[in-house]
Amino acid sequence: MADKLIIFDTTLRDGEQSPGASMTRDEKLRIARQLERLRVDVIEAGFAASSNGDFEAVKLIADNIRESTVCSLARANDRDIARAAEALKGAAQARIHTFIATSALHMEKKLRMTPDQVLEQARQSVRFARNLCGDIEFSPEDGYRSDVDFLCRVLEAVIDEGATTLNIPDTVGYAIPELYGDFIRTLRERVPNSDKAIWSVHCHNDLGMAVANSLAGVKIGGARQIECTINGLGERAGNCALEEVVMALRTRRDYFGLDVGIDATQIVPASRMVSQTTGFVVQPNKAVVGANAFAHASGIHQDGVLKARDTYEIMRAEDVGWSANKIVLGKLSGRNAFKQRLQELGVSLASEAEVNAAFARFKDLADRKSEIFDEDIIALVGDESVSAEQEHFRFLSLSQRSETGERPHARVTFSVGASEFTTESDGNGPVDASLKAIESQVQSGAEMLLYSVNAITSGSTESQGEVTVRLQHGGRVVNGVGADPDIVIASAKAYLSALNKLHGNVDRVAAQG
Amino acid sequence: MADKLIIFDTTLRDGEQSPGASMTRDEKLRIARQLERLRVDVIEAGFAASSNGDFEAVKLIADNIRESTVCSLARANDRDIARAAEALKGAAQARIHTFIATSALHMEKKLRMTPDQVLEQARQSVRFARNLCGDIEFSPEDGYRSDVDFLCRVLEAVIDEGATTLNIPDTVGYAIPELYGDFIRTLRERVPNSDKAIWSVHCHNDLGMAVANSLAGVKIGGARQIECTINGLGERAGNCALEEVVMALRTRRDYFGLDVGIDATQIVPASRMVSQTTGFVVQPNKAVVGANAFAHASGIHQDGVLKARDTYEIMRAEDVGWSANKIVLGKLSGRNAFKQRLQELGVSLASEAEVNAAFARFKDLADRKSEIFDEDIIALVGDESVSAEQEHFRFLSLSQRSETGERPHARVTFSVGASEFTTESDGNGPVDASLKAIESQVQSGAEMLLYSVNAITSGSTESQGEVTVRLQHGGRVVNGVGADPDIVIASAKAYLSALNKLHGNVDRVAAQG
Repeated sequence: MADKLIIFDTTLRDGEQSPGASMTRDEKLRIARQLERLRVDVIEAGFAASSNGDFEAVKLIADNIRESTVCSLARANDRDIARAAEALKGAAQARIHTFIATSALHMEKKLRMTPDQVLEQARQSVRFARNLCGDIEFSPEDGYRSDVDFLCRVLEAVIDEGATTLNIPDTVGYAIPELYGDFIRTLRERVPNSDKAIWSVHCHNDLGMAVANSLAGVKIGGARQIECTINGLGERAGNCALEEVVMALRTRRDYFGLDVGIDATQIVPASRMVSQTTGFVVQPNKAVVGANAFAHASGIHQDGVLKARDTYEIMRAEDVGWSANKIVLGKLSGRNAFKQRLQELGVSLASEAEVNAAFARFKDLADRKSEIFDEDIIALVGDESVSAEQEHFRFLSLSQRSETGERPHARVTFSVGASEFTTESDGNGPVDASLKAIESQVQSGAEMLLYSVNAITSGSTESQGEVTVRLQHGGRVVNGVGADPDIVIASAKAYLSALNKLHGNVDRVAAQG
Repeated sequence: MADKLIIFDTTLRDGEQSPGASMTRDEKLRIARQLERLRVDVIEAGFAASSNGDFEAVKLIADNIRESTVCSLARANDRDIARAAEALKGAAQARIHTFIATSALHMEKKLRMTPDQVLEQARQSVRFARNLCGDIEFSPEDGYRSDVDFLCRVLEAVIDEGATTLNIPDTVGYAIPELYGDFIRTLRERVPNSDKAIWSVHCHNDLGMAVANSLAGVKIGGARQIECTINGLGERAGNCALEEVVMALRTRRDYFGLDVGIDATQIVPASRMVSQTTGFVVQPNKAVVGANAFAHASGIHQDGVLKARDTYEIMRAEDVGWSANKIVLGKLSGRNAFKQRLQELGVSLASEAEVNAAFARFKDLADRKSEIFDEDIIALVGDESVSAEQEHFRFLSLSQRSETGERPHARVTFSVGASEFTTESDGNGPVDASLKAIESQVQSGAEMLLYSVNAITSGSTESQGEVTVRLQHGGRVVNGVGADPDIVIASAKAYLSALNKLHGNVDRVAAQG
């Protein structure tokens, strides 16, 4: 039997740390459920001590996920570790992941601690954690740029204290495959008790080599856990992409010889969900999950490729969950058909009231759009207004016009708490006018960092437009997403959705990179 | 002195082959000029024999580029090679790149030739090419999946015939760094006359490892040329990304020890130009050129990162050409200031008439948008209507309105050849209504594959929206791009621009993957 390789997904922790990718608690639970369907071994659900919101999110996921181990990050101190343990109390399988920086640069500039102090703190933290949880992962932050002798001392000490997984991050994405593989092998050879723990790799993509580095850590270094994220989401250039590393292991099983428990047909649905939730688009030429990754998935039928597909394709689109859009529901579909389709899509709404709200929106959409696809349904239930999140700002109606030679104008009606407002404004375009109309009342003062539109189904303008608006205010960055066949309405909804997220104030501390 | 590594850019050939990324002749020249500013060593400008359009594009680039070698692809037959040589006649330095498949799968299924026939054709083609051009590159297509003994015979033969560069493609993106590096080394060791040619790598990104594979081909295998594209553009998951492989070589010069002649500060401008021209977005978490690749380039100021930037950043954003948007021109700027800024941006328009047309558009824009950024200027001159391309369909004016509870409506005035039309339509949204209004007259029957919107400057809705529309008709796929502060107008412009490209009919044959 081949060795098992552990897939540790950190979309909800390291991925969510990416500026602009922050998610609500409900969004995180929805993604966690998809990660469970994908059969990842470990879900890093967040960093419980960083904020009350993150604590609640980790707890919600721990309470609801049964198949995957649920993990929380924690700095190497008793308070963080205790918070993590508390959030994980309801988990079927729990893991605490504690970390402290070990590179000279980070110890001196960030921690202002001596190496001996770091060693001692690592040791004590793991000891403390081990009394709360049987599954303890330890990461020396910026491990790849750390002094090898010192790093070996730290790693030996934390294994002695009961760490069960040792994760060696290339925090800044500086590694080269053969060097990183050798580094992991060296550590495993020199740490005397190295066989008492599972070794793990955690690579960043700053030089475009996160996947290759991770695989070298496994093949050359002997690691048996890979940390990764859906779509390679993560700070800066992101993390190792789950979809790429998993499909490389599958496609080149002849070379790697390792078993991976992932259900690959859930990869594309997971990619879409993460992209829609965060507003981080996936570029068309992205491996595995990009629209062009497979010739026939881009809607283009080229005779040559179809005739002898294996001459150019080493994977099959079906195997990673690409399937044609199907018209699943229409104007005449009833509540039961709608509810059943939600179940088939793996969407569970918390209450009948939410199902009713979603169904009302579905009927409204079906009046205006003849063909309803799975993606439309997912967008419907992803919409803030049917989720359990508290909604302070709410879109009601909009009218707008533009004409060459005149200044575009919009009138928006929306509610703020219990009050209803109708405001008007001019703007450079109808979208600009609509958002200015909202802002004239709300006066959030937020700065817009991103405005983008994607069609939800195929490319047609008959489909719904999905607008992502990213706002920054007071050091916080939030995404709002809105969907509607009318791009101006979708924009207004996205803006109000972002304002709702800014309204729910959250403080958080920075975690490891 | 360190060895020199040759950067061979194939954005205009292998990149352009990506479904939906086809470019006009003028667009290709504009990108070629940017590649020259970037100081790539070789520009593969196209595949001259594939179509008259491609022949003209290669010729135009050969006639205008002075610093970089200009290359044309050619199948291994006399006609293709003669066409390539003809197109390259005006080049300061010319290269012919000829190829034939050598893997059992490709020889049998695609070529229907025996290995001996392939060997003989490779030999004769290189001999023929060598009489027309002193700089000959030979590629065994699907080389990495070819039988090593057979491949060595082919490579030895073509070196004997005078091939100066041997390129070993991983056509389907199947390689693993250490295996690919060993493969190149094995070939170099076993081919007796291997020292008489420069060895080159050409990797695809299907498993996310194109950059790492290319670097292993260099470090382990001893290759001294890397073939790559801007933004990793290319079929399926694309090619090795120039920006990543160049910055990996720079950042880890301690390990690679090779000189690269690239002016890295031109990387981000090149990335933007290719993305705007093709409509292929760059995802935010893309290494080097993604909006989030550097913390402070995404507009987000995090104290921690700014305080000790080197704790998390291994490259500087400035070094790859990220710079803050500057307000460069406004309403009161004159024609000279505009013309000077064009020159500073490296944009050269063909005639004074074009400068005048662009300036008129600039004044129009400045009336509606108070701050004009460099990106706005680039979008202005990128607009079809001021370029030399023949314009059959032309946007004149538009009015539209939408109101909750009513069906959106649009009226569009545009010219078709010498005639002017005003048409109206309802639609699911104002964009849909506008395109339906155009289509009601034009009746192109084209299928829309993609509709996307990006803000040109920062994320604000005050900035111009840039819309990309991808249409498919009769087996052809074209992109239209339109920019305007009003997203509905930008959409109509993009649609008409795509119709213009469909109108200019081009036949082409498929090249290597």
